[in-house]
Amino acid sequence: MRIAIDAMGGDHAPKEAVEGALAAAREWTDIEVILVGNSAAIEAHLQNKPANLTIRHTEEVIEADDEPVKAVRRKKDASMVVAGRLVKDKEADAMISAGNTGALMTTGLLVVGRISGIERPALAPMLPTIDGSGVLALDLGANMDASAEHLRQYAIMGSIYRNKVHGVAKPRVGLLNVGTEAMKGNELTKAAFPLLEEAPIHFIGNVESREVLRAECDVIVCDGFAGNIMLKSLEGAASVFFSVLKTEFTKSWYSKLAAAILRPGLMNFRKKFDYKEHGAAPLLGLQGLVLKCHGSSDANAFKNAVRQARIALQNDLVGAISAEINHGK
Amino acid sequence: MRIAIDAMGGDHAPKEAVEGALAAAREWTDIEVILVGNSAAIEAHLQNKPANLTIRHTEEVIEADDEPVKAVRRKKDASMVVAGRLVKDKEADAMISAGNTGALMTTGLLVVGRISGIERPALAPMLPTIDGSGVLALDLGANMDASAEHLRQYAIMGSIYRNKVHGVAKPRVGLLNVGTEAMKGNELTKAAFPLLEEAPIHFIGNVESREVLRAECDVIVCDGFAGNIMLKSLEGAASVFFSVLKTEFTKSWYSKLAAAILRPGLMNFRKKFDYKEHGAAPLLGLQGLVLKCHGSSDANAFKNAVRQARIALQNDLVGAISAEINHGK
Repeated sequence: MRIAIDAMGGDHAPKEAVEGALAAAREWTDIEVILVGNSAAIEAHLQNKPANLTIRHTEEVIEADDEPVKAVRRKKDASMVVAGRLVKDKEADAMISAGNTGALMTTGLLVVGRISGIERPALAPMLPTIDGSGVLALDLGANMDASAEHLRQYAIMGSIYRNKVHGVAKPRVGLLNVGTEAMKGNELTKAAFPLLEEAPIHFIGNVESREVLRAECDVIVCDGFAGNIMLKSLEGAASVFFSVLKTEFTKSWYSKLAAAILRPGLMNFRKKFDYKEHGAAPLLGLQGLVLKCHGSSDANAFKNAVRQARIALQNDLVGAISAEINHGK
Repeated sequence: MRIAIDAMGGDHAPKEAVEGALAAAREWTDIEVILVGNSAAIEAHLQNKPANLTIRHTEEVIEADDEPVKAVRRKKDASMVVAGRLVKDKEADAMISAGNTGALMTTGLLVVGRISGIERPALAPMLPTIDGSGVLALDLGANMDASAEHLRQYAIMGSIYRNKVHGVAKPRVGLLNVGTEAMKGNELTKAAFPLLEEAPIHFIGNVESREVLRAECDVIVCDGFAGNIMLKSLEGAASVFFSVLKTEFTKSWYSKLAAAILRPGLMNFRKKFDYKEHGAAPLLGLQGLVLKCHGSSDANAFKNAVRQARIALQNDLVGAISAEINHGK
């Protein structure tokens, strides 16, 4: 299992990526880690390089504010693009990056390439739920518009991911909608509903966005626009709540006392609802494994992404998706 | 100003509707209130009926679980339908109902009728914001799918409503989107953006759902599907948040003490975020004024809806929308 890590992506590059890669290489000796990026910058954070960690030197970097498609096309020696090419050329089985999300999706599409039969790859992060189990949401932004057939493919890919990577035996797949009855929704969800009923998944029907946090399903399927509206509404609400709590907690000396009592429980809750805490998001539907880490990822987040990649590779996630999508063809 | 109230709609019908109507008729002697519903049931809650309050007897009621279109077509003597007909026939200037939302939208469309030039009426509730000012969101569910032209009309209607009813001099209108840059979004928002730029409104560009609670705009425009996803995500997050707080508050005797200190401030916050507290939602684009009260409305909510209707009538909301939509035609 060869895992390429874009060492130059993310807010704390290359330090956190390198330290995470190092920790992962030490913990799992059955993997090979390839750090892709500027070798001098990488080596500055590398002590006692283990045998299963190598460096692939590159000169260029895709910046956070680069225009994704242009950047991927022009910066052919960028660490992200080179990592994608390693996967494409079967020199690596997986790639991990905390860089520019749009550029990573473009790298996935143009460099790694789609699985034959897959119309659109989908970005699939885990959203937090109140019970801590989480729900895989897709598509969360790889494509703003979707067809019913796209949603059907998202559902299949999401279900296989939850099964292969998280060990959920029979993932419950829900369709994000405005009501639970079968005929609710817009033209898209009405067209997708019967396709999901016939798909090789455990489809539980429509799920409203207010129930997503309550872990009503293991996978929630939506177009990228609706998914983004849901995600940012949840984030926005959480941000407002915690800022109000902070105000209430600092109002007076006795509210500060109260805050001291309640803080541990609430911080635990806050951590549970921190989207950064829920691991890397796979970009599903590609010919190799591509994982997107949050831009602010620390070494531990990178190490956890390697853990995720390792499990996905052990269980041949990409092969399973390809086999199911092309079943009977 | 003659205001018809569907006395039979809502969870606490007819008691709360009747008591609210009574309080309103007593407070504002420049209005006439027409309570529409079963006269015996209404009179049971009426003491000392003022001269400006009359009853219009009807036999039928549209129930919460009735199929909207069928119910409106078949139950021609239902209190909601009769209230709509009073508006249509110019026997009333406005109607208020806390009944079945779908049926009320159908009554608006089929009984009251659209303003000439308006393609789709829109349901426009106020969403809470952290500063207490609120944002008018439309469409919130009258139509799941929308065209760019529909969004343009929603924007104009919402802007006029905020100006005429809330006295906002130059309402800031935002387009609900997944990013703030002009070319962000799905096919719909990309097509709507230039139309909104040219519309006779103060268009401030795209607004992300996470910023809505922070009162970045006075009107937020969206299709009914996306609006519903946003609204229910915010509601879901609020519900989870307060249930976690409750758990934390009751964990031990000292957390109960802390809770006692913080409760007033947090209850104030909770009230601010209670969607029921933000008045009735207008159904904009109809030939008469139609206001939807929350199903759980109490007498005070009905009275406040009458207050809203009175201001809208005093400022000729419907005439202003009609004039602007047909301007230059």
